[in-house]
Amino acid sequence: MKFLHTADWHLGKMVNGVSMLMEQEYILAQIGRIAQEEQVDGIIIAGDLYDRSVPPADAVMLLNDILMELNVRLGLPVFAISGNHDSAERVNFGTAWYEKSGLHIQGTLARDLAPIEWCGAQVWLVPYHEPAVVRATLEDKSVRSFEDAMRAVTAGIRLRWDETKPQIFVGHAFVAGGIPSDSERQLAIGNVDRVSTDCFDGFDYVALGHLHHPHAIHHPTIFYAGSPLKYSFSEAQDKKSVRIVTMDGKDLEEVRERFLQPLHDLRVVEGYLADLLANVAPGNEDFLQINLLDEGALVDPMGQLRAMYPNVLHLERIREKLADTAFERFEDVVKKDDLELFGQFFMHVSGKELTERQMDIMRETMDSVKGGEDA
Amino acid sequence: MKFLHTADWHLGKMVNGVSMLMEQEYILAQIGRIAQEEQVDGIIIAGDLYDRSVPPADAVMLLNDILMELNVRLGLPVFAISGNHDSAERVNFGTAWYEKSGLHIQGTLARDLAPIEWCGAQVWLVPYHEPAVVRATLEDKSVRSFEDAMRAVTAGIRLRWDETKPQIFVGHAFVAGGIPSDSERQLAIGNVDRVSTDCFDGFDYVALGHLHHPHAIHHPTIFYAGSPLKYSFSEAQDKKSVRIVTMDGKDLEEVRERFLQPLHDLRVVEGYLADLLANVAPGNEDFLQINLLDEGALVDPMGQLRAMYPNVLHLERIREKLADTAFERFEDVVKKDDLELFGQFFMHVSGKELTERQMDIMRETMDSVKGGEDA
Repeated sequence: MKFLHTADWHLGKMVNGVSMLMEQEYILAQIGRIAQEEQVDGIIIAGDLYDRSVPPADAVMLLNDILMELNVRLGLPVFAISGNHDSAERVNFGTAWYEKSGLHIQGTLARDLAPIEWCGAQVWLVPYHEPAVVRATLEDKSVRSFEDAMRAVTAGIRLRWDETKPQIFVGHAFVAGGIPSDSERQLAIGNVDRVSTDCFDGFDYVALGHLHHPHAIHHPTIFYAGSPLKYSFSEAQDKKSVRIVTMDGKDLEEVRERFLQPLHDLRVVEGYLADLLANVAPGNEDFLQINLLDEGALVDPMGQLRAMYPNVLHLERIREKLADTAFERFEDVVKKDDLELFGQFFMHVSGKELTERQMDIMRETMDSVKGGEDA
Repeated sequence: MKFLHTADWHLGKMVNGVSMLMEQEYILAQIGRIAQEEQVDGIIIAGDLYDRSVPPADAVMLLNDILMELNVRLGLPVFAISGNHDSAERVNFGTAWYEKSGLHIQGTLARDLAPIEWCGAQVWLVPYHEPAVVRATLEDKSVRSFEDAMRAVTAGIRLRWDETKPQIFVGHAFVAGGIPSDSERQLAIGNVDRVSTDCFDGFDYVALGHLHHPHAIHHPTIFYAGSPLKYSFSEAQDKKSVRIVTMDGKDLEEVRERFLQPLHDLRVVEGYLADLLANVAPGNEDFLQINLLDEGALVDPMGQLRAMYPNVLHLERIREKLADTAFERFEDVVKKDDLELFGQFFMHVSGKELTERQMDIMRETMDSVKGGEDA
């Protein structure tokens, strides 16, 4: 049995105000080709199909198209759940009809979770769930935390599973010890959103979504697929991929990454403005955070850079941080004389002290202006 | 061949700020029972499934549930299209999978419209479409009006239909001569949204949605089903229904109404406040517009009425219309003396002229107050 594990598509996502839809269309087509090349027996999409509970209409069409490709054209069973970004109820619409074609989508947490029998294995679809939802759905008042909730859900599964068959868990959660990126939405304040790895004891493969780094956790049977695209600059160093998983009965034979090649990369570039403008390297249409090394004032650096690098999403002046120079109190500022204030301004703009010569010129100029004022 | 024709469900609709969801759930269950009693061969839902392009999640669940009931539990083919209130793209999601179960939903206008073969007839699903959409979809630049659009679409159908078979058209449009109510959203300014009845020449049954009155038009083969509930007070006199249509080949044997019984009626009630409060008749939980016959000032009539009639949606003081007494010009008002102004106010509140005695008392009171002022 061989399957492809992906997650966190976030269809309809905007990164710094720019729509990722074209990028998403491109990468999903690639995932479809990989599924075909690898001749997998099925596809797992572990939540966050959309980026928000009410996705834009074109994101809805894109999901429809890729599911058509995977499930109808390629004839592959698809196992998908909703994540914390999805609307459980909206994702759940029509699922009874999809099922008949082997498109298994679980939007809301089911009270009496039943496994999907597939290639001799049992697949359990557990959408993202908050403790309150589990408390209500399972009518278990002892559920107070995310950890309690996951324990209650998996305990319920263990009562119903057929131990002799390979057990595949599809979920969307923050496993303790996992490394988050900047593009997941926090599930809760602090660390109370974490669930421990031993919630999943006994499962032969745990296909997770939520954390966007493909190696957010290291565990023999628990895997995050990671997002198929970089959705924040904290992921700039990631190599995004899908997992190709081969099992022989309950034995996890191989968990391999197939790397994805985005239409445009998302990168952090560092350099001096003049150099960046003079030497435009290939990849200039990538989504960029540019860290400028220049000191002092620059005339419209974003405008200049955009002409050469149309997808600059963020500009950082890394040598110009105001963080250290705390704001002065007004009382202290008014005590200073004009030359002292100008000296500070010059320092701020140029990073240099005024020379004696410069101070003389400035003093003369100020006197002459002030003389003019008095006249 | 026998089918049920309904339309304009508007799931998720609010009337005067009150959700109709419970009413809708109740009436849809009734439609399901009627379909079963009548042993129809299929159900037509002619657009405006939802009330808005992004319906609330509970409306999405309700549509899922009723389609499950009709299509899965009762095993009936369902033919549904999107209306002007629906999002064509969102409604279109998943339709390829539904089709396999005989749930035919057409969200967006298809370029190469194909009939659904059903009980020996051909059914054409033509969702609501604006002229611009038809112009683009059919690549026909001559389409400028709603009339042009409908003509282009039906001309295309006539090229492809099998004339020997009964032809059923399912559409969502404003047919010229139809009687609108207050709860449809206008398609366009003025009358340019109308299409003439001869657009539909040759069809054996035209199942329309859009106008909410069940008898919005009188024509031998063109029918509006009307909405299943009254969604505005302009529909208070309607008897809402679904159509039960029986055809023998191309012959329209019978078009019969099955009336619907709402959970709460929507009515206009007229009377004096005191009478309405003293004699609370059954139906006091209906959705009401109350036309009060009282003249003069009343203390919180809405609050008093709500205690007895919890679903008063609108209150009208029909004898208190300010329409006739146009506002006076400020210049004219300041010319009047205090007694004259008070007389006007008294007239406005009580509907009566001041008597001589009342004028004397008022004059005395005013003088005494003014005396106090001067002191």
